[in-house]
Amino acid sequence: MFRISEYSAMAEAKIRALDFPKDNLSGLYAPIAYGMQAGGKRLRPTLLLMAADAFGDAADKAINPAVGIEMFHNFTLLHDDVMDNSDLRRGRPTVHSKWDENTAILSGDTMLTLATKLISDVDDDILRTVINTFNDQALRVYEGQRLDMDFESKEEVALDEYIEMIKAKTGALLGGAAKIGALIGGASEADAEKMYEFGLMLGVAFQIEDDFLDTFGNADTFGKPIGGDINNNKKTFLMVKALVSGGPNAEALKAALKMAAGPTKVKTVTRIYEAMGIAEVCKAEVASYSSKALTAIKKTSLSDDRKDAFRKIIEKLIGRSK
Amino acid sequence: MFRISEYSAMAEAKIRALDFPKDNLSGLYAPIAYGMQAGGKRLRPTLLLMAADAFGDAADKAINPAVGIEMFHNFTLLHDDVMDNSDLRRGRPTVHSKWDENTAILSGDTMLTLATKLISDVDDDILRTVINTFNDQALRVYEGQRLDMDFESKEEVALDEYIEMIKAKTGALLGGAAKIGALIGGASEADAEKMYEFGLMLGVAFQIEDDFLDTFGNADTFGKPIGGDINNNKKTFLMVKALVSGGPNAEALKAALKMAAGPTKVKTVTRIYEAMGIAEVCKAEVASYSSKALTAIKKTSLSDDRKDAFRKIIEKLIGRSK
Repeated sequence: MFRISEYSAMAEAKIRALDFPKDNLSGLYAPIAYGMQAGGKRLRPTLLLMAADAFGDAADKAINPAVGIEMFHNFTLLHDDVMDNSDLRRGRPTVHSKWDENTAILSGDTMLTLATKLISDVDDDILRTVINTFNDQALRVYEGQRLDMDFESKEEVALDEYIEMIKAKTGALLGGAAKIGALIGGASEADAEKMYEFGLMLGVAFQIEDDFLDTFGNADTFGKPIGGDINNNKKTFLMVKALVSGGPNAEALKAALKMAAGPTKVKTVTRIYEAMGIAEVCKAEVASYSSKALTAIKKTSLSDDRKDAFRKIIEKLIGRSK
Repeated sequence: MFRISEYSAMAEAKIRALDFPKDNLSGLYAPIAYGMQAGGKRLRPTLLLMAADAFGDAADKAINPAVGIEMFHNFTLLHDDVMDNSDLRRGRPTVHSKWDENTAILSGDTMLTLATKLISDVDDDILRTVINTFNDQALRVYEGQRLDMDFESKEEVALDEYIEMIKAKTGALLGGAAKIGALIGGASEADAEKMYEFGLMLGVAFQIEDDFLDTFGNADTFGKPIGGDINNNKKTFLMVKALVSGGPNAEALKAALKMAAGPTKVKTVTRIYEAMGIAEVCKAEVASYSSKALTAIKKTSLSDDRKDAFRKIIEKLIGRSK
């Protein structure tokens, strides 16, 4: 098939059809069903299915691991929402605010094990590689989350520290999804590694663009209010870049961080970013990582039309800031 | 070797030698090292190593999966302590009270993935069975924890509901440990299933004994203050049995549950249990499940001296109430 929307629809349909134990165990599984049915782009399973199809017309075989990757992603969201004390996600109450915090913790744990089960549904000859890939990327995600949490209390974060953090927190799982899909499709180890690189770089581009849109985006298409990161003093690419640039604008930014959250703060910080040309730096960085993602795809042994499907996914994901 | 203390020492030594990333990731891994070094009986890895040795002199080969099972157990303790808001475990501050709740959640998640990695360190021919066994028993543990949480707000819990809960929460992981050890030792599927049954029944006996000791034990040998379950109105075997027995004593118990926590409440409830002969019912139940564990061992193809090692572990664990 090779159309992105068909792969995401395929993942969505399987997720909607997931069947969980009910009766006396609904307290454990109903929050999982709720968390999984929040919608979203289904980017990770889409990438996994696309890679399986590109290397071996194996999207059907890859459906359970694809759902497993999404289950893992949703598990991290459940626990992140507890840690960030967020009450809303995609316009709906989060699991811990709809139920309670203990439910979010325990049902989240359950999702991690369910994810591992789903991802293990691959042929024997690749089982160990797939499981190792998944576990290693999961560890990277936790490491990235830890670094992100630690950044909150740091005065200044170096730009390369920030990039390492988003590689771990966002890139690693996209890389893992692309690699696992490729392996299911029968890709060589070399091709699978290039697909990992593709996902990793796509993830970095995607995250920097997300940071950009949180300040410079359009609330309607971005899907959440603009300026949330600024109000939370979040160490985004924009803020890290502005702070390390130094000079009077960086000093003005430090002063603005002490302002109370609200539209004045958002406007003040946005103007400082504009004065520093941060938006252009962001766009250049997104373009640079997109280009790295594309280079990785070009190095695979895929035919040109199959490479093209991945070029389109880059365009689609990072076209949001244009 | 076949001496229980040697297997637990072997597990302990490997746990002490675990090496975690430091530097900028110590915020994630230091709480894991702390949680793992809390000591304790190391029952689950001991059982796994014993089973591997009994079936194939394979304790050395089984050391990583053994540590993995203990890592999983300690992950559940980290998250349980958050959910129960417990500040102390084995006389030390819990992870969430020494660090914070977010650290306990995230480092706990990391432990679950590290556990899966360690448990995957088995030969290719048993990898899938071992991973499936582990994941399925992990799900049972979460299900048991959920039921236990749900029992808190239930007026009355049936005795068989209670037994199902402790089978899941405590028995399943002991069963999984014994089965995985047996598989590593080269046991047949039939023998591995009997070892599962052994661990499951041992776990039920162990948990009922633990409930007994929390009311009728000796604080010095039990390791925690007596009466904690009574003060928390916890639905233990003792309370469930007393409540379903009905009659004036059960009514008196219901009234006592409304008392404020303290030594008077503990004394009042203990006297009601004594009047109802609950201690004797407990002992009989522990003996019954111990006997089921022994029967499972007898049905394996192990030689008599190897069976004897498992008889000794039953005696050791449930000898505490004698």
